Amino acid sequence: MTKYNQITEDTLRELRNIVGPSFVVTDEEKMMPYAHDEVSEDKYVKMPEVVVRPRTKGEISSIMKLANKEGIPVTPRGAGTGLSAGCVPVFGGIVLSMERFNKVLEVDKENLFIITEPGVTTGEIQKRAEDEGLFYAGDPCSAESSQIGGNVAENAGGNRAIKYGTTSRYVLGLEVVLPNGKIMNLGGKCVKDVAGYDLIRLIVGSEGTLGIVTKIWLKLLPLPKYRADLLVPFKKMQEAIEVVPKIMTMGGIVPTSVEFMDSMTIKAAELYLNQTLPHSDAGAYIIVEVEGSSEAQVEDDYETIGKLCLENGGIEVYVADNLSTQERIWESRKCVAEALRVVSPVYCMEDITVPTSEIPEILKKITNISEKYGVKIPCFGHAGDGNIHATLLRENMDNDTWENIKELALREIYTATCMLGGNISGEHGIGAKRIHFLKEFSDPVALNVMQQIKLAIDPNIILNPGKIFGL
Amino acid sequence: MTKYNQITEDTLRELRNIVGPSFVVTDEEKMMPYAHDEVSEDKYVKMPEVVVRPRTKGEISSIMKLANKEGIPVTPRGAGTGLSAGCVPVFGGIVLSMERFNKVLEVDKENLFIITEPGVTTGEIQKRAEDEGLFYAGDPCSAESSQIGGNVAENAGGNRAIKYGTTSRYVLGLEVVLPNGKIMNLGGKCVKDVAGYDLIRLIVGSEGTLGIVTKIWLKLLPLPKYRADLLVPFKKMQEAIEVVPKIMTMGGIVPTSVEFMDSMTIKAAELYLNQTLPHSDAGAYIIVEVEGSSEAQVEDDYETIGKLCLENGGIEVYVADNLSTQERIWESRKCVAEALRVVSPVYCMEDITVPTSEIPEILKKITNISEKYGVKIPCFGHAGDGNIHATLLRENMDNDTWENIKELALREIYTATCMLGGNISGEHGIGAKRIHFLKEFSDPVALNVMQQIKLAIDPNIILNPGKIFGL
Repeated sequence: MTKYNQITEDTLRELRNIVGPSFVVTDEEKMMPYAHDEVSEDKYVKMPEVVVRPRTKGEISSIMKLANKEGIPVTPRGAGTGLSAGCVPVFGGIVLSMERFNKVLEVDKENLFIITEPGVTTGEIQKRAEDEGLFYAGDPCSAESSQIGGNVAENAGGNRAIKYGTTSRYVLGLEVVLPNGKIMNLGGKCVKDVAGYDLIRLIVGSEGTLGIVTKIWLKLLPLPKYRADLLVPFKKMQEAIEVVPKIMTMGGIVPTSVEFMDSMTIKAAELYLNQTLPHSDAGAYIIVEVEGSSEAQVEDDYETIGKLCLENGGIEVYVADNLSTQERIWESRKCVAEALRVVSPVYCMEDITVPTSEIPEILKKITNISEKYGVKIPCFGHAGDGNIHATLLRENMDNDTWENIKELALREIYTATCMLGGNISGEHGIGAKRIHFLKEFSDPVALNVMQQIKLAIDPNIILNPGKIFGL
Repeated sequence: MTKYNQITEDTLRELRNIVGPSFVVTDEEKMMPYAHDEVSEDKYVKMPEVVVRPRTKGEISSIMKLANKEGIPVTPRGAGTGLSAGCVPVFGGIVLSMERFNKVLEVDKENLFIITEPGVTTGEIQKRAEDEGLFYAGDPCSAESSQIGGNVAENAGGNRAIKYGTTSRYVLGLEVVLPNGKIMNLGGKCVKDVAGYDLIRLIVGSEGTLGIVTKIWLKLLPLPKYRADLLVPFKKMQEAIEVVPKIMTMGGIVPTSVEFMDSMTIKAAELYLNQTLPHSDAGAYIIVEVEGSSEAQVEDDYETIGKLCLENGGIEVYVADNLSTQERIWESRKCVAEALRVVSPVYCMEDITVPTSEIPEILKKITNISEKYGVKIPCFGHAGDGNIHATLLRENMDNDTWENIKELALREIYTATCMLGGNISGEHGIGAKRIHFLKEFSDPVALNVMQQIKLAIDPNIILNPGKIFGL
């Protein structure tokens, strides 16, 4: 592990010179919100020595040069809605908050682009696009609170990835301050670009370890005119999951979303919403969304899907083709993270990914692991992507038991996942939380290449250290 | 420039031990086809010292270890259909032909994947998917002859990128032999994967300079059931291009293709096909393709687009909704590369990219450059992506004049392109052909990062040297 220096009064003075005194925070109470993300465990809380809130790329460049000179770690931070402690300053030093980079710079209707600073919420990006009849397809569940810079850093996924892919697909330009303080410009308003290596997609998903993004060019699409949502309860999870590839192959349809909830999750949602959900004793719900430019096509699509569901074990098909019924259908799915907190204030939400066809198998294995360790593990998530939020509930375990069981159960879940051709993280990233697991469950050759790249770009390991590889 | 060693009899013996004597070629005549790609200029022809045709990743690994030990350059090669001399062995050494990696390994109907070796043609991939009612969306114009490994190396684009993106979007897993001979496994059958950096998209488009791809996992889609093509002649290019964003924003439609041809290209196609094309005195043709899962939607879409074209300067709208009329519409567009060879056997086909809205402006500038240097530059390509095949015709110039004019005219075209927010290559890559131009027209900070990555992964500069950066 690299040794870092503590921040001195001299360094604080230099930081105040760079960004102005009111944007350098050392007050403990004011720094507290910058000491953690949404991982709900004390061991992933760490106070920064100072929080700096720059406004320009030039200021960030100066901060990085200073940090390299003084040997001080810098941890960039968006809204702090991450789930892998990726923005926690594990070695102290500087937290560099991007909150003042909060302007949408341009909506280009002719080329279908939005150009934005990173500190704008994803919801705001979606809204600004919609105001112009356009569509930003990225849609993590945290859209209302997460910032687009964080979405880029984590390559955020979400509900629509089956049709639209993840954040990565829409990022066509980036302005990036490198760890050495130099400013790098990549891409812009062009859809095709093969002039050299694809550094944009190297930065996207690098969890703030290779550079600090200061400007983002996002591709927009036409706003789909028509939309319908289906809620289908199934007796058995297996039947629900087996419908998914049939929608694609027999139906010839790529839905916008195919979400699922298991029986434990359905019950938790029913309790939380304090209302009777339809067939809440079902083994599984699936929610399917379809969209299109023509009303006839959307109708064709949902009729085909509804028929396929009923032929393959669906108990009933609820169709919602207006906003209020659509919101009711999604309510049960979108409340799950909160609903599970009522059952167990401390939990560990995972984001494993398997080939879609292996969802029934991995769910069976998770049930076995749950029984073996006596820990409840409700499962829900993105069936269309094979992306499962297996969520270990602490309930009333004491801390040592919880830590012990969590470690063992996670290792077994990851082992089963990888045996089925999956990977340990589809959305949340590695951060500080899963470094040892990444080492255990990754191709060692690939991991070594990643580390070589990190060291080539950040030789002093100044930018967001202690993440992904522990470097 | 790195100094390389010549291949000795000892090295040849070791190569024969690795792959078997019949797969080591040193006969000059037999090596000739491996000395060039489709760039039609003598200066991009260079004989290898030996051509090796391995069959397994283990053999390739041994070849790379040997090459590192002996200081011999290795140039990997697919079908040789490239347009930037990317597979030309500019320092001699070993050409490593992937032609025996010619098996499709699996079509997974449930997860919508095709797993293939790199030496399969793109057309074969498309066909194998179609046989199962599925769809491989990548579609470079060279699909019948280019190999999928080459598509991955170049991040091939083509006609459908406006809707489906480029090759990069569909590559979800790779097996790669690194320059040091180690074998790296990335991804697989999962749609989401954020466990570490996105090395897949670093390899895709790296032009064979970072690793040799030995196995590819490609995501498939449902085969669109209905399709229609429109050919619309316009009096003026400007009018034709201005319709494109209107299709997206006013029509709310993402077409599969929006191709364009200028008047010189239309005339060349007419001459080549020896038939009268409709309104062949038009200033521009656009060809629009739409697809969908419902017939009603496709009809809605092409009616909307036809109406938009007629309201905005379209002379007439020809609709093709069956295979034979569709082929006739595409014939004129697909023959252009050949048709221009009849006008001028030597030409230089470019692939600049600009924001879509800047197409009229760049075409105006290209006309001026054409007049200034007295060189004809017909333009055609992918209007939906802003990707323009400006093609400089040598006709009857002597070689020195041609080289001189080409250099000056290209510099002016690239300057204009970059001033409009574009880049010098959307499809063909840098290869050996454009090294000095990449240096001139790229962000120097980004270029330096790329070089650092190359050196971190290939410190002896053994794999495909003399490409992209000249390293």
